[in-house]
Amino acid sequence: MWRPYLVIKGYSVILEGLEFPRYDGKDRVIDINNKNYQKAMKKYTMMCLLYHKPIPDGKELQKQHLMTEMVLELAAQVMEEKEIGFGMVDSHKDTKVAKKLGLVEEGSVYVFKADRVIEFDGMLSADTLVEFLLDLLEEPVEVIGNALELRAFDRMEEDIRLIGYFKNEDSEHYSAFKEAAEQFQPYIKFFATFEKAVAKELTLKMNEVDFYEPFMEEPVTLPDRPNSEEEIVAFVTEHRRPTLRKLRAEDMFETWVSFFVISFTLYGYEFLELLKEVARDNTHHPGLSIIWIDPDDFPLLIPYWEKTFQVDLFKPQIGVVNVTDADSIWLEMEEQDLLTAQKLADWIENVLSGKVNTEDDDEDDDDDEDDDDDDDDSDDDSDDSDDSDDEEDDDDDDE
Amino acid sequence: MWRPYLVIKGYSVILEGLEFPRYDGKDRVIDINNKNYQKAMKKYTMMCLLYHKPIPDGKELQKQHLMTEMVLELAAQVMEEKEIGFGMVDSHKDTKVAKKLGLVEEGSVYVFKADRVIEFDGMLSADTLVEFLLDLLEEPVEVIGNALELRAFDRMEEDIRLIGYFKNEDSEHYSAFKEAAEQFQPYIKFFATFEKAVAKELTLKMNEVDFYEPFMEEPVTLPDRPNSEEEIVAFVTEHRRPTLRKLRAEDMFETWVSFFVISFTLYGYEFLELLKEVARDNTHHPGLSIIWIDPDDFPLLIPYWEKTFQVDLFKPQIGVVNVTDADSIWLEMEEQDLLTAQKLADWIENVLSGKVNTEDDDEDDDDDEDDDDDDDDSDDDSDDSDDSDDEEDDDDDDE
Repeated sequence: MWRPYLVIKGYSVILEGLEFPRYDGKDRVIDINNKNYQKAMKKYTMMCLLYHKPIPDGKELQKQHLMTEMVLELAAQVMEEKEIGFGMVDSHKDTKVAKKLGLVEEGSVYVFKADRVIEFDGMLSADTLVEFLLDLLEEPVEVIGNALELRAFDRMEEDIRLIGYFKNEDSEHYSAFKEAAEQFQPYIKFFATFEKAVAKELTLKMNEVDFYEPFMEEPVTLPDRPNSEEEIVAFVTEHRRPTLRKLRAEDMFETWVSFFVISFTLYGYEFLELLKEVARDNTHHPGLSIIWIDPDDFPLLIPYWEKTFQVDLFKPQIGVVNVTDADSIWLEMEEQDLLTAQKLADWIENVLSGKVNTEDDDEDDDDDEDDDDDDDDSDDDSDDSDDSDDEEDDDDDDE
Repeated sequence: MWRPYLVIKGYSVILEGLEFPRYDGKDRVIDINNKNYQKAMKKYTMMCLLYHKPIPDGKELQKQHLMTEMVLELAAQVMEEKEIGFGMVDSHKDTKVAKKLGLVEEGSVYVFKADRVIEFDGMLSADTLVEFLLDLLEEPVEVIGNALELRAFDRMEEDIRLIGYFKNEDSEHYSAFKEAAEQFQPYIKFFATFEKAVAKELTLKMNEVDFYEPFMEEPVTLPDRPNSEEEIVAFVTEHRRPTLRKLRAEDMFETWVSFFVISFTLYGYEFLELLKEVARDNTHHPGLSIIWIDPDDFPLLIPYWEKTFQVDLFKPQIGVVNVTDADSIWLEMEEQDLLTAQKLADWIENVLSGKVNTEDDDEDDDDDEDDDDDDDDSDDDSDDSDDSDDEEDDDDDDE
């Protein structure tokens, strides 16, 4: 179709290539029901289903539901040629289908790939969902063949990753490794090499597998090589909670512990280096789980975090957040002062021993040095309760 | 309001703090017209207006319009306490208002802040818009007071930035610098220092301003210090087109030249280092403009780029794209081979001299080494023409 007005805009064609794709308005997401689900599941190599509460009555909640639907529509449009189907399953109307497919949690997205079901633990935006699906389309194990690829592997310090050295693609131990990889794809990255030189640089023996925790310098070797699929799965399951982890949109809802040390580090390169040092020294402490957040990765959350935690996110911050009441306490840092690893380690020690806790700054100031802020006396938390209690539900109809 | 079911989900409160904000369905975006625009402009310290074509008739185009509206609604919800107003101006119904406010381009977002109007050149997603608005809320000049902040400044190699050394906040030359900064906020970053030690490390004399092009090691000093506001503005305007630039969602539509060298560098750290080296050596070449794209930053575009350019984005790529027809040609690289700076420089030299151009691989293969791909014979481009010719328009009603 020739449109003359296109000519006037000389740059439109190249802008097209660099342009953010807009939703074209077409309906691609299938309303899944008992009659059509089998056909849909057969048609696509991967199927992505949102299990949602019934569409609510109120106008506002309907608009909210529509926005979720549009996230799926945009993802479906972008992935159109990748043979991925998208559908929605209503938890009231389609109970039979949901039961057959094993859908449990309302508001969750489930991806069906061959005989596996993968729950999407990321934030429900088109970018994040598409990135997740593209990762799922890749091979579960990435093969490292040369020094250049090895250097790229070395730089992935933010990721949990495993690497194994095997004879070749036909090795039964490599097969076991690959089967294990499929069970964690795309959340945990699996690499393999068949090259002696690469293995040597990694100090890997034949059929040996190393596990890298994020930000740690040295990997842990899996015991008793060669390892079966079950052994690898068990090891990863046991070790997957990192001491220090970067918050990422792809898996932000993945696993949670009873309290967090949260650290915001906009422009805080030195601060992050300290944090890594402390994490490395304390990696064997089972109670420690630090989440590192780069606020730049989550612009939509900056205003909310500033309000909830009452901290200035334009400088590095570290604090403890209580899971049960979102109460928090933050390490006081002098403006000009460079925090030392020792001071940070002491503070974390006090957090782990309970000497520093989120109750310290509540009501009266009596026992420690971290009580200058008074976030508890503000009523910020209650202000937000209306739009935030449905963190994993698609439609919150509050009845 | 107490909701008993909240108790069961033990983690909901903390998840709240780490959760992606969902649209609550409330209408916050004002339908701007001749009667209400003055009141709205007065009420808020900043006003963010989408100038759009009339809402179309077709269901699909209405849905597309609704999606754009929801981007604004989510941004408005997130920014609710920052005193930023959001509105939509219909280009047919509200011609008077549009004229008064100086709105010209349909589909564009304009931000009104004090007596300035800033056009948003980023991609229309809630994240990108919110990030842009948060940047606009900051001071136009960031002051660097110590070595730690200076190191953070040093690491911003992706940004165009200026830094000046002034006596103090009351200096008239600092005022001129600040006035100039306001005209480029938030696209170009302005820094200042009042500290002798910081200035010494930057080799800045009193009232001197340095301009840093992205990825260049050495800055350019503005001539004839002290500089007036006009001099600074003129200098920045002349020098703002970088030799090598990273594509970012915030300003992806900002400026364009007649052709691009585009480089994709997923896991391509070494490749990027080469690219920087070549850019540094060729920075005085007026015709050279390289855009570096990290595909990870644009997951929604990966499937589209792969199709349009017929390249595998999971390894580094470099190519030339013709603005007028989106035709492209890509440098052939051996799988195992580490590209050298010399080879890359030679190729870029051939691009600049016209020896390598996008016509080389069209039709018959007769004159050079870069003609193995045949992207022109595919009909990919035409497939996409339907959803891509309205790159800057909000509603494409195609009549």
